Amino acid sequence: MDDLLTSLTARLGSHDDVETRLVKRAGFMYDDPHPGVLEWMPAMVTGGRAVVKVVGYNPSNPRERDLPTIVSTINLFDVSTGRLVALLDGVLPTALRTGAASAIATDVLARRGRPVVGLVGCGAQAVTQLHAISRIREIEQVVVYDTDPDASASFAARTAFLDLPIRVVDRLVLERESDIICTATSAAIGEGPVVDDTEFKPWIHVNAVGSDLPGKTELPFEFLKRSLVCTDFPEQALVEGEAQQLEAADLGPTLNELARDPDAFAGTRDQPSVFDSTGYAVEDLVVAELFLRHAREMNLGRTLAVERLEGDPRDPYTGLVAGVVPVGIAK
Amino acid sequence: MDDLLTSLTARLGSHDDVETRLVKRAGFMYDDPHPGVLEWMPAMVTGGRAVVKVVGYNPSNPRERDLPTIVSTINLFDVSTGRLVALLDGVLPTALRTGAASAIATDVLARRGRPVVGLVGCGAQAVTQLHAISRIREIEQVVVYDTDPDASASFAARTAFLDLPIRVVDRLVLERESDIICTATSAAIGEGPVVDDTEFKPWIHVNAVGSDLPGKTELPFEFLKRSLVCTDFPEQALVEGEAQQLEAADLGPTLNELARDPDAFAGTRDQPSVFDSTGYAVEDLVVAELFLRHAREMNLGRTLAVERLEGDPRDPYTGLVAGVVPVGIAK
Repeated sequence: MDDLLTSLTARLGSHDDVETRLVKRAGFMYDDPHPGVLEWMPAMVTGGRAVVKVVGYNPSNPRERDLPTIVSTINLFDVSTGRLVALLDGVLPTALRTGAASAIATDVLARRGRPVVGLVGCGAQAVTQLHAISRIREIEQVVVYDTDPDASASFAARTAFLDLPIRVVDRLVLERESDIICTATSAAIGEGPVVDDTEFKPWIHVNAVGSDLPGKTELPFEFLKRSLVCTDFPEQALVEGEAQQLEAADLGPTLNELARDPDAFAGTRDQPSVFDSTGYAVEDLVVAELFLRHAREMNLGRTLAVERLEGDPRDPYTGLVAGVVPVGIAK
Repeated sequence: MDDLLTSLTARLGSHDDVETRLVKRAGFMYDDPHPGVLEWMPAMVTGGRAVVKVVGYNPSNPRERDLPTIVSTINLFDVSTGRLVALLDGVLPTALRTGAASAIATDVLARRGRPVVGLVGCGAQAVTQLHAISRIREIEQVVVYDTDPDASASFAARTAFLDLPIRVVDRLVLERESDIICTATSAAIGEGPVVDDTEFKPWIHVNAVGSDLPGKTELPFEFLKRSLVCTDFPEQALVEGEAQQLEAADLGPTLNELARDPDAFAGTRDQPSVFDSTGYAVEDLVVAELFLRHAREMNLGRTLAVERLEGDPRDPYTGLVAGVVPVGIAK
């Protein structure tokens, strides 16, 4: 996580629209045989690496197929040659980079001191949100809430490695006590907001992680209006983040700007702020490169020959004489 | 190839815009540190499989990095679960499906009988063009031409498995003698056309395979104007195919329409026709499924655990206690 925070801060802080290219995620939505989405998220650093993450989102997976709702894989490419450099599972990298992005925003926008951190929604994202924030602030106390009591009850066990005092509380207690809140819920479209705006501390900082679909939001409109709202990828946030509730003109600095010049925003730490995290492919690129580097250092992973690079490029059947067709079946 | 012709004809012929979803290929073009493109081509059959092919195009690869110009990999997904089902090299599948698409068009649009087939450009694509056409017509004679004498001279050896009479000829001889021509050149942008239109037979059928970039075309405008021009994916062909030279209203039936009702076009076989092949992701989907099926039947390929599907979905660090991070390093 420390490595990721360092790498991601450096990449975001030095972001340059010419050197780093990305597109909004795009995909196929479907209703048959059940509702779901298959989407792809590409980004490229010119002359460096490119990433294409493909995400399958099938909410009926757990109940009907004993699989996670989200299944994803990340392809990492070397741009100069076009070669695939690594293929990795996308779930852990995504959770890690989402936590790291919140920590980078929190470090710039939240008050100094020992905060109480409140987690609304206690699933996998809450684990990495807390982990990442614990690396940039000495946390006094963690208060957690989930509409599913199993999720809140098991949270302390899942974050035991952080050795932090964790209390399961009512949502209004959480809102009253927290200096920093992370919302990472699976509230359905139209179901939000998932917090009120009645007892927030004047300096509250919220990392809003859950909204990732048009129509899905977690924070009250009035709270957004009175807060400094920072986004990771404004064009995308206006379509699928909390920023859906706002206009482009209402948005504050981007995460890139926070990372580039954190001191410029120190004056806002006593005011309410929001990091509207929709997740974007540059974050995936950084975390995939980090996984690859660590895997090589730790001698993890498997080496595969997938691409056929040898033989006569004018003969597509080169190498088939031996009956060897290079197919990696990933299942 | 026979399996592919059957599968591709069936898929194209039953094409339904609701069931089959695809987007035009998109990508990042770059000039630094050398000119190239990284592009992705997604397609999905709802409730079935989806494909994302990623293609790296780096013309300086052979000279400077001892690698092929085009390196590509195909990810095949199960849509209902979101899972990656297979990862395979894209070069051979692409050459095969491009050949198969031309054969499907040729079978509908070209005269019956034993044709003379002319190949303008004798690289890898020419091999699979000829292979595929040899499965739908008994070929009388093959005449070949390439601006690079090494390519034309080595063509017979590369297609020896087809056991066809092959002559290297001048381009004008090729144009005069051929009943069917395939153009598959790497003519640069603005360099075309690569054939004249002076001595074509009245019933000439041309598969134009090489144009795949804005500005790159292989056929003379006048010839296109007097021919029945069929495209694989009209929106894309109008941007990067021979159809760049035409308007949408000038285009004849699509490949899907040819596959669906071949008899409807029998009356055009004595007139000049063009199949404007730009390549599209539905073809990649069909060929990737075929590779997977054959690999399983022949017990080829390797089985990999890439996705982490076990453990507590609320705990992103599940499984890490054993120090095992699932990373497939493809190099």
